[in-house]
Amino acid sequence: MTEIPFAPVGRIIKNAGRLRVSEDATETLTRTLEAKAEEIASEAVKLAKHAGRKTVKASDIELAAKTL
Amino acid sequence: MTEIPFAPVGRIIKNAGRLRVSEDATETLTRTLEAKAEEIASEAVKLAKHAGRKTVKASDIELAAKTL
Repeated sequence: MTEIPFAPVGRIIKNAGRLRVSEDATETLTRTLEAKAEEIASEAVKLAKHAGRKTVKASDIELAAKTL
Repeated sequence: MTEIPFAPVGRIIKNAGRLRVSEDATETLTRTLEAKAEEIASEAVKLAKHAGRKTVKASDIELAAKTL
């Protein structure tokens, strides 16, 4: 299971080329995005804690995404 | 607007650390993921066409994700 739903990811692939999209393709991209999100989120949490905050801010996400 | 909804991405950040999560942080990560998805999808479409197919398959997504 992923938090990110499959349908919107399927639409992103569809919009990229007007080709047919296999279910497996949608699932694979969703899982790839979910893993990337977890990786960035985990780094962002470390950065927020490092800054002495109890809230993850956009700047934590930006810095985490840049370094990953 | 993004295809990917904000709420599940917010949950991914929440699950990463049990800190509070600002709305801006959720929006920033969602937009980052959406951009990555569009980039991978666009490359996957090229790979499917290159292979003479009219369907994007999981292998196109995997190869695109690896090279990006």
